[in-house]
Amino acid sequence: MHSEKKDYEKIKKISKKAALLTSISELLDWDKETYMPSAGGEMRGEQLKLLAGMTHKQMTGKAFSKALSALIDIETGELKATSLPAPEKAALRLWRRDYLRDIALPGKFVEDFTVLTTKAMEVWAEARKNNNFALFAPYLAKIIAMSQKKADLLGYKEHPYDALLNLYEPDITKNEVAKLFSPLKNSIIQLLQTISSKRQLDNQFLSGNFSEEKQLAFGRMLLKDLGYDERRGRLDVSTHPFSCTLHPDDNRITTRIEPDFVMSNILAVLHEFGHGLYEMGLPAEQFGTPLGEAVSLGMHESQSRWWETRIGLSKPFWSRYLPHLQTYYPENFSRISIEQFYRGINKVTPSLIRVEADEVTYTLHIILRFELEVALIEGSLSVKDLPERWNSGMKELLGITPETDREGCLQDIHWAMGGFGYFPTYALGNMYASHFFENFEKNIPDWKNLVEKGDFGSIETWLKDKIHRYGRQYTGRELMEKNSGKSFSEEAYLSYLHKKYSDIYKE
Amino acid sequence: MHSEKKDYEKIKKISKKAALLTSISELLDWDKETYMPSAGGEMRGEQLKLLAGMTHKQMTGKAFSKALSALIDIETGELKATSLPAPEKAALRLWRRDYLRDIALPGKFVEDFTVLTTKAMEVWAEARKNNNFALFAPYLAKIIAMSQKKADLLGYKEHPYDALLNLYEPDITKNEVAKLFSPLKNSIIQLLQTISSKRQLDNQFLSGNFSEEKQLAFGRMLLKDLGYDERRGRLDVSTHPFSCTLHPDDNRITTRIEPDFVMSNILAVLHEFGHGLYEMGLPAEQFGTPLGEAVSLGMHESQSRWWETRIGLSKPFWSRYLPHLQTYYPENFSRISIEQFYRGINKVTPSLIRVEADEVTYTLHIILRFELEVALIEGSLSVKDLPERWNSGMKELLGITPETDREGCLQDIHWAMGGFGYFPTYALGNMYASHFFENFEKNIPDWKNLVEKGDFGSIETWLKDKIHRYGRQYTGRELMEKNSGKSFSEEAYLSYLHKKYSDIYKE
Repeated sequence: MHSEKKDYEKIKKISKKAALLTSISELLDWDKETYMPSAGGEMRGEQLKLLAGMTHKQMTGKAFSKALSALIDIETGELKATSLPAPEKAALRLWRRDYLRDIALPGKFVEDFTVLTTKAMEVWAEARKNNNFALFAPYLAKIIAMSQKKADLLGYKEHPYDALLNLYEPDITKNEVAKLFSPLKNSIIQLLQTISSKRQLDNQFLSGNFSEEKQLAFGRMLLKDLGYDERRGRLDVSTHPFSCTLHPDDNRITTRIEPDFVMSNILAVLHEFGHGLYEMGLPAEQFGTPLGEAVSLGMHESQSRWWETRIGLSKPFWSRYLPHLQTYYPENFSRISIEQFYRGINKVTPSLIRVEADEVTYTLHIILRFELEVALIEGSLSVKDLPERWNSGMKELLGITPETDREGCLQDIHWAMGGFGYFPTYALGNMYASHFFENFEKNIPDWKNLVEKGDFGSIETWLKDKIHRYGRQYTGRELMEKNSGKSFSEEAYLSYLHKKYSDIYKE
Repeated sequence: MHSEKKDYEKIKKISKKAALLTSISELLDWDKETYMPSAGGEMRGEQLKLLAGMTHKQMTGKAFSKALSALIDIETGELKATSLPAPEKAALRLWRRDYLRDIALPGKFVEDFTVLTTKAMEVWAEARKNNNFALFAPYLAKIIAMSQKKADLLGYKEHPYDALLNLYEPDITKNEVAKLFSPLKNSIIQLLQTISSKRQLDNQFLSGNFSEEKQLAFGRMLLKDLGYDERRGRLDVSTHPFSCTLHPDDNRITTRIEPDFVMSNILAVLHEFGHGLYEMGLPAEQFGTPLGEAVSLGMHESQSRWWETRIGLSKPFWSRYLPHLQTYYPENFSRISIEQFYRGINKVTPSLIRVEADEVTYTLHIILRFELEVALIEGSLSVKDLPERWNSGMKELLGITPETDREGCLQDIHWAMGGFGYFPTYALGNMYASHFFENFEKNIPDWKNLVEKGDFGSIETWLKDKIHRYGRQYTGRELMEKNSGKSFSEEAYLSYLHKKYSDIYKE
């Protein structure tokens, strides 16, 4: 037993070193998006590359594999350590899994892929700007070819897409995602048809002239109310909002300020707060082990969407904060009732751009991308046919057709950066959140009163207790089952959408 | 020849890796002093320690010493590379010198010293706060003992202090510094006596109520006028102003805002601009080699003091900027003439605190510290007698005596952080600047007109041409001789002080 503990500590020590290097990279990335002088970019790239190489070396080096294989058979996954507690056994399994992933891709391959995607992102930006899909197409074709190769190197049982998907969302397959998305698609299209037959809502009052200074002050006020610990985190402004965590004691979130639209900043703050809260709730003493890491991108998104949509687009939240908003912007909001405001921020309109989509149509954007990227990876769709298939998909799902590729298949950066398998995690996040929320409402039935009082403590404790504190000890689905006793499905999410939006669109 | 070039590239590659790691540490330090959430400090310490270890490993590892010893005999310093150009030969000599320094201190020693000084800085802060020298004394004694050991490990010819001094200012000995300081001391004391017999100047108008926002705006306006390239640098606020450079394309300077004193921020901006300009003027293509590094702390200080005192405390500078200041703060300055202003900002008063000292008395503060730290290191002064010797030294040099150790020997952090040998570089910087300035005035005789017009370009080009572009190829004294044809002495500095201040205090 003593020796197993000692071997475990050896693994932990190397893994912590790698985690420290990763946390440094996080700061470099944060700085790049916030304060770095523009000419510093080239140097920043070199710094990040050096750190990535060093991190990879730690986690694939002999010292690590030797220590690991003393406690778990790397080939078969069979545990050799028998005396360790369950969480540490789980950690060993995850370290092994990550190790197999890390050694699967040769250094040369990773470098070539980085060179390709770095260039591809530049070309994509140019192509999008000039609405020129042909410019981007050859790069996309190369990225797809390399992603297929990547899937082969990583290995998979059923479908090459699984290997890519699992980089972001482990423990789920393409077929399982498809099985979740299929009823979602039909049901949301139906809901959308119902909505479109109702009286359209007004949300014009959300547009206007909102100074950066005031918007930031409002965001900071929200964070303070939410209990975002300013000794352990901070808020800045960037082009695209993000959350970045160096350690549970050092989280940084950013927001985007749109001077003519008030909700953009508010929803970004709430969204990134959710990401930050997850990271700040991970056990600091497990920093550097899988037990100190978030489960998956989908689980992460469930936490950000929880605060952005389940709380931030709810009526009790705005019962509390509309009066604040009216104080900040009396001209814009003093005549707006809570009912008007609530319905306005939840207005549903099929639109072309994913990041501007409402809660109902958002998932359809994801489903389209999922179907297309699966087809691209398995080779049943060729790059040249992508724009047309994108447009027909939009017509089928949302009833609208982009007039340009810029508003169509060129709108997102994900494929240019080689992120095949990333998109589904956005939709899974919403579904996970709803699954958890059902049980949350049972455990804390007066949550609406709490939110109305600005008392968020017990909500946060609930999330930490049910999710954050476990790190990666359980998969997302295990956590959901453990929490609700029910196995995960799309039902909670659909029921939430239908209930909320048939109430909003009752007339 | 081909093989020498190849070996040189090998050295350069390793050295560049180390420089990248150091540049990352610079960012971590900058962030720590500017934006890091307070709870992130513990993690930051671990990150910095990891990077320092990795950097040290690069520059002392077998790969490096093997590549280096192919081109230079590490034992004797004899060059084996014959075909390389002079700058690269100089680089090899410097790499060797740094290597010998880096391997001289065992890892355990460095770590113990860091642990000791980290604790000592905490204790010092406490001791200073409570004016309790006895609390700090045992830590200081330990630091001195370890510094003596450090000097032995590093090696020296004449005096153990030389080994410590050379960490900050290579190519100069304690005896040489003493020989420079001796006439300085007598002459400045004499000047001070003359000044004290004259009519005292008024500088009350520099105090008042100056908002952070306006002060920052004024600082940014100055930087813009000075041509500080905002694509390659930025200005922030911190408790203690500093300059930090990741690469010639990424420099960051900070300023301190004192809401009741207008000059603090202005002089900090000019001072740190000088440091920044030096680093931004180093040849970027030499990043990672000694040819891309600054000569010494003294040379660095010569550049910061150049802009802070030679330019920033000059009459032509304020002929241009007093009208600006009057626009920013009409109530404070509209009735102040340029003559009044110029004399006010150059008012000389013996005072207790080094960082608040004027240009004339500043050097006396340094001489006191130099004499005391030499005595502490050679053992002719014991820690318990330090407060008394400090006070009698102040009486002798400045004619005033601190009433508390807080305003006396506890005021500076340098000894607590183990920085014996650091202080003289402040005075050397002023002297270097004056030596260069004599020739600068010959080369650019209309500099006063240029400054009055806000045309700083040719001054900056001169500095880059004479100093920055060489990196460490020449020592500071070589650069000065190369530039002026005269060997370096204290004369230029003394002549500057006497001329300037006998004009200011003519009545």
